[in-house]
Amino acid sequence: MGGNAFGTLFKVTTFGESHGPGIGAVIDGCPSRIALVAEDFVPAMTRRRPGRTALDTPRREEDRVEILSGVFEGRTTGAPIALFIHNRDADSRPYEILRTAFRPGHADYSFFRKYGHFDFRGGGRSSARETAARVAAGVVAQKILEPVGIQVTAQTLEMGGIQARKNIPGAAENNPFFCPDPEAAAEMEGALKKAREEHDSLGGIVEVRVAGCPAGLGEPVFDKLDADLARAVMSVGAVKGVEIGAGFAAARLSGSENNDPLTPQGFRTNRAGGILGGISNGDEIVLRAAVKPIPSIKREQETITREGQPCKINLEGRYDISAVPRVVPVLEAMVRLVLADHLLRFRAIGNEKLFSTAD
Amino acid sequence: MGGNAFGTLFKVTTFGESHGPGIGAVIDGCPSRIALVAEDFVPAMTRRRPGRTALDTPRREEDRVEILSGVFEGRTTGAPIALFIHNRDADSRPYEILRTAFRPGHADYSFFRKYGHFDFRGGGRSSARETAARVAAGVVAQKILEPVGIQVTAQTLEMGGIQARKNIPGAAENNPFFCPDPEAAAEMEGALKKAREEHDSLGGIVEVRVAGCPAGLGEPVFDKLDADLARAVMSVGAVKGVEIGAGFAAARLSGSENNDPLTPQGFRTNRAGGILGGISNGDEIVLRAAVKPIPSIKREQETITREGQPCKINLEGRYDISAVPRVVPVLEAMVRLVLADHLLRFRAIGNEKLFSTAD
Amino acid sequence: MGGNAFGTLFKVTTFGESHGPGIGAVIDGCPSRIALVAEDFVPAMTRRRPGRTALDTPRREEDRVEILSGVFEGRTTGAPIALFIHNRDADSRPYEILRTAFRPGHADYSFFRKYGHFDFRGGGRSSARETAARVAAGVVAQKILEPVGIQVTAQTLEMGGIQARKNIPGAAENNPFFCPDPEAAAEMEGALKKAREEHDSLGGIVEVRVAGCPAGLGEPVFDKLDADLARAVMSVGAVKGVEIGAGFAAARLSGSENNDPLTPQGFRTNRAGGILGGISNGDEIVLRAAVKPIPSIKREQETITREGQPCKINLEGRYDISAVPRVVPVLEAMVRLVLADHLLRFRAIGNEKLFSTAD
Amino acid sequence: MGGNAFGTLFKVTTFGESHGPGIGAVIDGCPSRIALVAEDFVPAMTRRRPGRTALDTPRREEDRVEILSGVFEGRTTGAPIALFIHNRDADSRPYEILRTAFRPGHADYSFFRKYGHFDFRGGGRSSARETAARVAAGVVAQKILEPVGIQVTAQTLEMGGIQARKNIPGAAENNPFFCPDPEAAAEMEGALKKAREEHDSLGGIVEVRVAGCPAGLGEPVFDKLDADLARAVMSVGAVKGVEIGAGFAAARLSGSENNDPLTPQGFRTNRAGGILGGISNGDEIVLRAAVKPIPSIKREQETITREGQPCKINLEGRYDISAVPRVVPVLEAMVRLVLADHLLRFRAIGNEKLFSTAD
Repeated sequence: MGGNAFGTLFKVTTFGESHGPGIGAVIDGCPSRIALVAEDFVPAMTRRRPGRTALDTPRREEDRVEILSGVFEGRTTGAPIALFIHNRDADSRPYEILRTAFRPGHADYSFFRKYGHFDFRGGGRSSARETAARVAAGVVAQKILEPVGIQVTAQTLEMGGIQARKNIPGAAENNPFFCPDPEAAAEMEGALKKAREEHDSLGGIVEVRVAGCPAGLGEPVFDKLDADLARAVMSVGAVKGVEIGAGFAAARLSGSENNDPLTPQGFRTNRAGGILGGISNGDEIVLRAAVKPIPSIKREQETITREGQPCKINLEGRYDISAVPRVVPVLEAMVRLVLADHLLRFRAIGNEKLFSTAD
Repeated sequence: MGGNAFGTLFKVTTFGESHGPGIGAVIDGCPSRIALVAEDFVPAMTRRRPGRTALDTPRREEDRVEILSGVFEGRTTGAPIALFIHNRDADSRPYEILRTAFRPGHADYSFFRKYGHFDFRGGGRSSARETAARVAAGVVAQKILEPVGIQVTAQTLEMGGIQARKNIPGAAENNPFFCPDPEAAAEMEGALKKAREEHDSLGGIVEVRVAGCPAGLGEPVFDKLDADLARAVMSVGAVKGVEIGAGFAAARLSGSENNDPLTPQGFRTNRAGGILGGISNGDEIVLRAAVKPIPSIKREQETITREGQPCKINLEGRYDISAVPRVVPVLEAMVRLVLADHLLRFRAIGNEKLFSTAD
Repeated sequence: MGGNAFGTLFKVTTFGESHGPGIGAVIDGCPSRIALVAEDFVPAMTRRRPGRTALDTPRREEDRVEILSGVFEGRTTGAPIALFIHNRDADSRPYEILRTAFRPGHADYSFFRKYGHFDFRGGGRSSARETAARVAAGVVAQKILEPVGIQVTAQTLEMGGIQARKNIPGAAENNPFFCPDPEAAAEMEGALKKAREEHDSLGGIVEVRVAGCPAGLGEPVFDKLDADLARAVMSVGAVKGVEIGAGFAAARLSGSENNDPLTPQGFRTNRAGGILGGISNGDEIVLRAAVKPIPSIKREQETITREGQPCKINLEGRYDISAVPRVVPVLEAMVRLVLADHLLRFRAIGNEKLFSTAD
Repeated sequence: MGGNAFGTLFKVTTFGESHGPGIGAVIDGCPSRIALVAEDFVPAMTRRRPGRTALDTPRREEDRVEILSGVFEGRTTGAPIALFIHNRDADSRPYEILRTAFRPGHADYSFFRKYGHFDFRGGGRSSARETAARVAAGVVAQKILEPVGIQVTAQTLEMGGIQARKNIPGAAENNPFFCPDPEAAAEMEGALKKAREEHDSLGGIVEVRVAGCPAGLGEPVFDKLDADLARAVMSVGAVKGVEIGAGFAAARLSGSENNDPLTPQGFRTNRAGGILGGISNGDEIVLRAAVKPIPSIKREQETITREGQPCKINLEGRYDISAVPRVVPVLEAMVRLVLADHLLRFRAIGNEKLFSTAD
């Protein structure tokens, strides 16, 4: 029971439902004296916002983050930082059907089986809306990573079967899909349009890269950095798979191919994805997540009622065609939460500065 | 810091190094009155044991599990259960080279950077030997799952690029690779031999299936069942990727293909892999893990010394050619630990019996 | 770092400062389907409210609790319950002096030494205002205890050296000090008046009793019920001591006096205070807390500046003369939080119903 | 469930029963590169050992601590440190009576009600024997406190109603009761003899003082240093009360008496006991614990059987007359565990060195 908290030292608890008063996060464990004002959240929240593409759900959320506590005269105090984002535009009428029937591919059925009662409006607690709180918390995490020089960036490698063939620096920020290949981005737009006409939805693959991460983060044997990253990434609703470095491809490599030779200038290759034995090795951290297609599609679907009777369901309302673009900033946030937590844990061990010259 | 504990209510802490006195686990939170004797550990420990294949490292570990506490007159008391397995055959001379140089693909470098001092003999704490403690703990977890009817089984889908083409019930237990396809198993043996001759190693893919899991396990939003499974699986040293249900393939499916329709008889398909919104839905749980090739290969490799100077390393001793067969029982154990923990957490919520008739 | 969360399964995180936007609590782990509406908080919040006695600080807080999440159509959903109480009447000018000097007996000095920056207005995070969030969370905890028949009540045994000599049922609710002896209550009022005239403040002793607690709550050896109660009670700012059952008096009893004989009708005496070996024994739980006098007194006091220079401090504003009456509902809340958490933990073990006939 | 772990970063899990193979502790989170060998445990284990006074139980435990993991070539590695102490002299026949009847004042009844099955031999898990593991873990904690200059010492203020009237430096180490007043110590010996003749037992009061603790340890609002100390101290079986600084006496002081004025040379008085707002203030930490008389007395006592029938119980075997002397090193250990954990948590916040010049 529970399960709404993340982290050991930099601990984030999120709360809120899609159609309740709002959603929020409480960060317990942020160091003091860090500059933080409400404006700091604007870029990340804008980046995550739906309506970023012409095809997205037109729900207009301003997603202004209010700081309810933990900041005094523009700097953190070490007290818990409570963040709150009001919900707007909450027409819950289209969801009345969910009082009786379960949406395929959604959490409705399992929530009902577990809790016996749940807020079905817009998915309630299981809504992607909850990730806005994660993104907000990620902004605070970033404040801890920045002085160390850690930079987290995610981009879309694939959507609707269309793969990015190029990785042009900066290009990912210039299209609504965070795709580093402008040509592929244009094709993705076409694929989205087609899926929309067919009342269907699309999945894809998102990659996260972390530059500037010092060696030493991660706690063997269970809180390995890759284990915690896997949990963090898989905790995002739409994600069905995660891999680090060579990932699934490593299963077909031989040891002589997969081992990354060490040189005085660093690792010659990075099949490990920046993590060895669960501890960051100073190289770039690389992970990829598989994003499933959004289950809300505007087709008649086969399902059952709460009483177990077969029925058909037709979802009203408007939905995104793909979660991929919105997952990008959420994965960035989750990776930041993991790294901020492990950075503080590493600091506690007292060896942080031991080998700093070698960094 | 820390990181050697797993679970919230059924909490397992492992300890021990490859060449120390032994390895062990303390289980804090096991319910009382469960029958448990030392013999209960024999099948699982035998299943995990190296030397299972003719090609494996000949290190003969009997891996007899001693119960140091928590059991009285053959039944658990609710007190912590400490398990201990003595190490044997601990010739650490071949590892003296590691006092100066790092093995590529191993945890040596990152451990040194983090801790400044580590037990390098046989990998020390980062050795696969540690997983024996996990397997032992998994035996106790299984005692909690059994009365509920939960059955966890892993098998090898792929090794050295050779895929199981068939899934013959029971076949996986009749070859040293846990491969459900006897023909593929024969080819895997050939691949292992070839890799051994080439002084190389092989990776593969292992699948875990859970039958009989009731709906309701998993705690949104961060302790989702799939998130905890991903962490558990990724915490096994050799694993570089994990996917649930359709996994990475889901990235290329449309919503209409990927959604599992509900029927009065259950889900028509199981692309979700038995988990919706982070909560088990009563269907079979299916996950797969990518296992990298063992980094210890008997070739000269490029690396650096602790002082950062370039050097060559030649590993002595004998090593397994693939971790895949030994990962199979370890993943079973890890999945059992996750499920036992979530089962107890679900019990705490008090809704457990609510819908039992529908189960 | 952190430290703002309480509980293992019924986990409460509080946030907020005395002069920020408000204070709140997030409850992670409350079971679903429990009736809960905003009105449920009114009695407890009123009971805690300052201004209850004519002598209290006239700060008028309505302390209306808003439910921000976790409740749908009047019942909990199992999702985190976020509660928020707006601050009002926040004239922070009297506190400007704290920008340079530390108040004796307050947390100012240690907060400054730890965090280097803190919200000094009204004590900020260390203000008794924070306990309003605890009381609100206690209301939800009570919802879990009620069906089991657990009843938690605190009363004032002593204030300003005046002891309750009688314990008249119900009397404690009829005077502003929660004193079960009306005569003593009248004397307490006199003592408060006198202290106020002398610009001084008073401490006292509060007792908490728990009726109807089943045997079996508490987890040896570190999460013993008495250990967790001690932590909970000592975490209330004004508390400097806590004792269970015979408490400090037990230090002077012999074993033959202190042992509680068991009879078929229950324990013959209750020197244990309802807890044996850290586990509730089914008898009434009894604990007492020593409350120090409020450190804010309207006298000139000797102190130092942030730079370590000696100076005098004269506090402006109005203050309570004794924390005792306000501690009463806070201790009730804290004991409820402990019991709700342990009740859920006990439920997880699955033995809950084992001996229910004997209860 | 669970409850056998203590600490957040410096996490100690103990295991073992009085008459099982032995008892032990696993420390997860100890920094690396700390010198540690088996001999380091000898002084503390000897100090705790029964048989220290002529009147103590003659059970001869050598209590040699074995290091099972986490140390390599005499220094910690950051891996979990498992410590084990074999049990000896385990004649469990005198305890057969406990198969049917409960000892008054002991945990038997509540353990049976909670677990339905428990190891009754010598108290099993609830035996004071478990504290040997705590003392061993405290030795490792001390290794973290030492470089910072933190010194923890406990002594006996009162036993059997006899109070220490003097506090002669070093005197406490020269009598078996850790009493700082040699005269009182002589009287205590007389009281013990008398109690033994009367087949009775004695309680007392133990004080712990911490010198050299820097300001800044403790995490408001729930993990306050005093709250965690209270929990730690109350988790020791025989303890029924705990107070910090002025403690219960503070309840009768006025604010003007109880406030500790600040001066450039430090606090003028120390009624706070070194902790303000839950954070250490740099002054000496002072706490006292009330120790109940040992419940095992060689008199016929009234009790009930497991079936609830009235019966008489006569304990065989030999028992200590007072737990006080053995509680002294255990409380020292518990306080060390708390401080080591909070020191690491403070280090994580990164402000540790901020004001070090002012220390």
